[in-house]
Parts: sequence; C-alpha cells; structure tokens
Amino acid sequence: MTGKVFIVGAGPGAADLLTVKAASVLRTAEAVLHDDLVPQEILDLVSAKAEMIPVGKRCGSHGVTQQQINRLMVSYARQGKAVVRLKAGDPAIFGRLGEELEVLREEEIPFEVVPGVTAAAAAAAAASLTLTDRRAASALVVLTAHNCHGQTLVKTLLDPEQTTYAIYMPGPHYGATAQQLLQMGLDASTPCALVSNASRTNEQVRFLLLSELPSVTGVVTPAVLLVGRVAGPGMMATPTLLLEKIHESIGSTTQNPAYQ
Amino acid sequence: MTGKVFIVGAGPGAADLLTVKAASVLRTAEAVLHDDLVPQEILDLVSAKAEMIPVGKRCGSHGVTQQQINRLMVSYARQGKAVVRLKAGDPAIFGRLGEELEVLREEEIPFEVVPGVTAAAAAAAAASLTLTDRRAASALVVLTAHNCHGQTLVKTLLDPEQTTYAIYMPGPHYGATAQQLLQMGLDASTPCALVSNASRTNEQVRFLLLSELPSVTGVVTPAVLLVGRVAGPGMMATPTLLLEKIHESIGSTTQNPAYQ
Repeated sequence: MTGKVFIVGAGPGAADLLTVKAASVLRTAEAVLHDDLVPQEILDLVSAKAEMIPVGKRCGSHGVTQQQINRLMVSYARQGKAVVRLKAGDPAIFGRLGEELEVLREEEIPFEVVPGVTAAAAAAAAASLTLTDRRAASALVVLTAHNCHGQTLVKTLLDPEQTTYAIYMPGPHYGATAQQLLQMGLDASTPCALVSNASRTNEQVRFLLLSELPSVTGVVTPAVLLVGRVAGPGMMATPTLLLEKIHESIGSTTQNPAYQ
Repeated sequence: MTGKVFIVGAGPGAADLLTVKAASVLRTAEAVLHDDLVPQEILDLVSAKAEMIPVGKRCGSHGVTQQQINRLMVSYARQGKAVVRLKAGDPAIFGRLGEELEVLREEEIPFEVVPGVTAAAAAAAAASLTLTDRRAASALVVLTAHNCHGQTLVKTLLDPEQTTYAIYMPGPHYGATAQQLLQMGLDASTPCALVSNASRTNEQVRFLLLSELPSVTGVVTPAVLLVGRVAGPGMMATPTLLLEKIHESIGSTTQNPAYQ
C-alpha cells in the first residue's frame, strides 16, 4: 500500500508560527525529509519513532541533490509511510515545490500541500511594517537574488514568462481584470487558477486560460486568481490520466486536483 | 494600565491553518475585533468571556469605518485588555495593517503583529501548484484589482512608488542586489528593512536606505530584504521619540521597533 506525502511549510522558524495542521502532521509522521533551515525546535515535535532524513542543499555546500530528494520521498511513500517533506517558509514560494509535485504526480503517489507563513510576512511582522498599503504600496513583488537563469531582477520582473501573478479580490469585473493583465503583456493563452475559499470545506478551484476569464460566472468570494505558466497543465507534467482530468475541468468548478 | 493589541493573521479560513501562536493568543484574548471574512470555526476558539466586536467593512456594505476600528482598538487597550485585531490571511498583505500600526504608535499602545498564511499560498496549496519555479517563474507579483487610487494593474506594477519588493536570499552580494534595484527604477533614498531570522529568538532588523545596502556587513541568514516606502520612518508616522530611535538604528542591528 502506498503512503502519502505531506509537503509542509514550516513557516519562518519559530515553532509557534507553524500552522496547527503542520504541527499535527509532524506529530504523526513516520518519515520526515527536512531542509537545513528548519530549526531543531520544530524537528523536536516529530515522534521519536519517526525516521528523520536531513536533505538540506544550502548554497555552496555539497548536499543532497533534488533528484535524490525526489527518490527518497517516493521510496518512503512506497513503503506505506506517512511522509512529511518539511520546507522552511511556504512550499510554493521559492521552495522547489513544482519539481517535487511533478514527481509525485508521475509516480501517482497521494499528496497534500500544507501552506505556511512565508518569509516576507514574517519579516514584515518582525519589522512592524506592512507590505501593502493603500497609500503607499498597491503591489508586492517577491523576487530572489539567486535564480538558476542568472537573470537580473529587472529582467525577471519584466518577463511575464518568468512571473506568477497573484490577484487578490480579482472580481467581480473579471473582464476588466483580464484586460489589464493583457495590457501587462500577458498572452491570452496564459493559464490561470481561480481559487475560491482556499482551505475551507467549500473550496473551489477552476483551471482556465486568461482568454476565458471574462466569461467566468458564479465565482464565490473570497477568491484569488493565480496567473502564469505555473498554473498550466504543461507545468504540472502529469501522467496522461490526470492531464485529461485537468483539461476536462478547464473553466468548470473542480475539487483539488491532488485528490482526483 | 494599558493593555496590548495583537494584530493577528487568521490565515485563509480553515481553523487548522491558524498558526499555533494565533490560536493561543485568541484563546486568552479579552476583546476580539474581527473582519467579516474570518469564519465562525475560528471565532469559536475565543473564550466565552471575551468581547466579540465584528468590524467587517466588506465592499459595498455600510460597515464600520477604518477610523472607528482604530478608535475601538485604542479604547479596549486603554481599558487594560488583551485585544486581538483579527484579520483574514496575513495582516501585512492587503490588510490595512499600516493604518492600524500608525494609530497604535501614535497612541503609544504596546502591540505585536502575528503573521499568517496569506491567500496566495493557500490558493497554491489548494490548486496543488507552485507560485515560483526555477524553470517557469522567478518572480511572484501580488496585486489587487481593487485599489483606492483607481490605478490599473500595469500602472501600479511599473510604479516603484506604489510597490514593495521582498527579496528572498538577498545576499551575499548586497552591492549587486542594490545595483539591480536601482536599475529597476528605484531611488537611492528608498527605505529598506533587512530582516534576519524573522520570528526566531535571534531575530535582527536593520532599517537602512537603498544607497546604504552595498556597505552592509555581517548579515545573518536566512534574511529577507523589504524595499519600498512602507519600510520608511515617514510611513510609520511615529511619535518623535520612536522616530529618533528608528533613525539611530539606521544601518545598525536593532530589535523589533515595536518593543523599543
């Protein structure tokens, strides 16, 4: 029997900034693959019976490769174990989540992503400042000085092919929002994920193309619109079966594709 | 005796995506001012003895004004109460945190910001996708289709005066990072907050100007660099005493200014 992999955001470091769910999943994990950046205080929550596998690959050190991490994750899950892949911050923000999801989908291993508090939010709280402010900042741009293309920040930022847009409160005028995204240089074929009530029991996820956005109806709020190549079935590099399901669901309400 | 205000991120909605700290602060709160978007499941954590004050101001409804919220927050704190100001998602991302911090600083009321899981991270987890990917997205841009200037998304995005930049892994070449930010059109006088080990016991916050970034030394990792008007003492609109302390601390290591 195949186990399940929980890809868990450990948050910024303080154990009390773990989510309640992350703490609970850690306590019942049977194998934990963790990054270097996760502090001992958090690792101490894991049961003494669980296997702890450090898979840090810090800049400049000769650590574990991404391929080795993928292989370990799959191998523990195939042993029927509850596996936690523990990442600092939020897994979806500079956490190599994409590559790990790709492998889990290819290997048809059940998984769940548990989001965490990202470093920008924690840094803002630490400095007692706000990241957006209707008087001084309507946009938050999250970048890294390290990227594998060696691109400069400005080149990254102005390249819609290298950017994900997260639009908070995207409605109710989806036509106008789509129009503005096109004006920003995005292609009409850019994939989108429109998510209502994320994490709640009435969560809804729709996959669609930017060109289809003006005709969406019945979007329940609160909603977030994610726009960019990361939302496309191509990026998901899924087995054919899942890919078909994703295509079927384009433009229609769907449950979390991880569980389909 | 003055109480304390905890500005708390409730996360995306599921009660188990609260942080451990948020859940604990809610349980001991004596007064809770909460947004409409926070679900009942989370409000149920609050002690029956606490005062619950709904302060929702949803689009289009005639709810409580920001000024009224500020006044209520101050008034409960002045009664010596442990006050929670509970916001959906993360307080620093489209949460009007700036305006509330300003009032608390002006009124010299002790406060603490408890970060939460923001909607973009929760939506990515729900859709099982990543927001950044070294193969397809080196930048995450967080925007809203609603802003009080009526600016279009593209105008917002290209206006460095209306944008906060969060640079993950900003070092070790701070000169190069600063150079790239200048190339993006930022002014050398743009305020920055360089935060190491956010949320941990060894947290460090330095306030500096972009022009001072190349000469910073001894930055402990993990670090996040926040760049934009939101990091400036001007935005903080603080009483003179605190302002002086912030100026003193420019370029040098400091504790969280909220506690100074």
